[in-house]
Amino acid sequence: MNIRIVQEMKATGKKLCNYYKEYNINIDASEVMITCGGSEAISIAMMTCFNPGDEVIIPEPFYANYNGFSTSADVKIKPIRSYIDSGFALPPISEFEKLITPKTKGIMICNPGNPTGYLYSKEELNALRELVLKYDLFLLSDEVYREFCYDGKEYVSVMHLQGIENNVILLDSISKRYSACGARIGAMICKNKEVMSAALKFAQARLSPPSYGQIGAEAALETPKSYFEEVKAEYIARRDFVIENINKIPGVFCPKPSGAFYCIAKLPIDNADKFCQWLLEEFNFNKETVMLAPATGFYSTPGAGTDEVRIAYVLNKTDLKNALTCLAEALKVYPGKTN
Amino acid sequence: MNIRIVQEMKATGKKLCNYYKEYNINIDASEVMITCGGSEAISIAMMTCFNPGDEVIIPEPFYANYNGFSTSADVKIKPIRSYIDSGFALPPISEFEKLITPKTKGIMICNPGNPTGYLYSKEELNALRELVLKYDLFLLSDEVYREFCYDGKEYVSVMHLQGIENNVILLDSISKRYSACGARIGAMICKNKEVMSAALKFAQARLSPPSYGQIGAEAALETPKSYFEEVKAEYIARRDFVIENINKIPGVFCPKPSGAFYCIAKLPIDNADKFCQWLLEEFNFNKETVMLAPATGFYSTPGAGTDEVRIAYVLNKTDLKNALTCLAEALKVYPGKTN
Repeated sequence: MNIRIVQEMKATGKKLCNYYKEYNINIDASEVMITCGGSEAISIAMMTCFNPGDEVIIPEPFYANYNGFSTSADVKIKPIRSYIDSGFALPPISEFEKLITPKTKGIMICNPGNPTGYLYSKEELNALRELVLKYDLFLLSDEVYREFCYDGKEYVSVMHLQGIENNVILLDSISKRYSACGARIGAMICKNKEVMSAALKFAQARLSPPSYGQIGAEAALETPKSYFEEVKAEYIARRDFVIENINKIPGVFCPKPSGAFYCIAKLPIDNADKFCQWLLEEFNFNKETVMLAPATGFYSTPGAGTDEVRIAYVLNKTDLKNALTCLAEALKVYPGKTN
Repeated sequence: MNIRIVQEMKATGKKLCNYYKEYNINIDASEVMITCGGSEAISIAMMTCFNPGDEVIIPEPFYANYNGFSTSADVKIKPIRSYIDSGFALPPISEFEKLITPKTKGIMICNPGNPTGYLYSKEELNALRELVLKYDLFLLSDEVYREFCYDGKEYVSVMHLQGIENNVILLDSISKRYSACGARIGAMICKNKEVMSAALKFAQARLSPPSYGQIGAEAALETPKSYFEEVKAEYIARRDFVIENINKIPGVFCPKPSGAFYCIAKLPIDNADKFCQWLLEEFNFNKETVMLAPATGFYSTPGAGTDEVRIAYVLNKTDLKNALTCLAEALKVYPGKTN
């Protein structure tokens, strides 16, 4: 590996530590490993923390690619169901305990959540902390949407939890906060030296994360806070617009998320996969249609999410308005409508 | 994944196909998957072609990181020894056949080779072709040094071998040919649609290769041939200088490689790891020392390569001259000298 690349990694790591300080997270550069996107951080963390056959409990619905990384690492995901009726709040700890076996080695969360937009409260994270302590589990937390927390609700990181410092792995990425998903710069952060030493072996084999992306990331990390205030205001406006108007469509229910830029809506349909495909292939309203992600892909339990879809409110308000009109019209004529 | 990134991947793939045409390799863009460096190409190819517990035969010494990728994929490397006395030529096919078990699913080579600099002949590759046909094996070939073939010797790619198109996987990278190792742009190339479809699942989970690197790679792929003529002339001069002078040091033997920018030298020493560490920690000549890679790391067989080191002749001639003087002086005083 050439010296320039090593220097970039160190520089990116140091800048990241400064950035975390703003969130009251104290990290040393030696506790940071820059990865090729958040994806590689998740992948390396799974290979590092778990052995083949180990189990990790993940509240569902969850980011679908966790399935790919766990399959590659030969780790079994044990889903724990969260429900749309409670806005996808953390399931009761008693439900977690029912799933714990001698093979359970970790819990993984996404906070704020993709695809739910749910932001875990301090109480919920403290409950997880107790569980982690009681069973000596790893707690992997994908916090790539931390900039996108709304309504004055507090972002609590797993890095804020006391007494489980050696169990916690923070998974991060610059993709969401700077709209730089192609840069492929993420990070795996952990205070456990054994974990970081094992992770480094996986990292060493693939040599380095991309250096151009790192140079860009270092510059991006200097983005003034005012930028995020503007972005946040825009996302809140989009979210409020979507939530208010989608819930006006007969038979539709969509809880109001407090983070990220996603929401999950329950629709009066027989089958979300079929409906989303039908929208793309057979339906149009004024020569336009709407693309939704069927929620089934985010659930691991068979049959779950069949009447739910994920909406990413990343379009401007005019486009969102047209999309919602289109959805309302579609639901009027969809052959598989249930009520 | 955003549309720009998908466009970059397609554009890089197409440009790569044009580049291969110059080497008489006919590839369609649908047979190319752009990866995060050659490292990821190797990693995905191993996970795609092999199941946990499968065996792959690799002539040793080989690029040490193959160990990391095979361990991650739970694939067992069965090393087949090549020897410095024959300049690391391909071992006889009968030796390969001795290693073949029902678990053997592939052969992997690096051509021209890292760390040996050996360039396989058409006859050697045809012999491998017969073996691949006879046992229906995958043939993975890491050909990242194809620009660096010397003495008018012909570069033969596994892609030139007839009748095993569905068995062959070409692993490539722009790192060596454009000195762009930090860009992290590689490729996995295969005409077998089933293989590419399975590989895409691993690729999809991690989203995309780095987009800035791809933009750079596309520009790099327009590098005129004249550039490589100059680079080649320089490397030949460096190689000739190293080979001529290192063989003048008493007790040293170093075969003349025909490719890449490495050579392996046999030294009159007890232990290459110890010697290389001693050079860095205890020796200096005119306040300088020389850093060598102990060859032991490139062998999988315990005890192999203990009196061999890898030299990368990537320095200018003045520095190479000083390095060789330094090595000669070191060998005069090294406490573990064997003759």
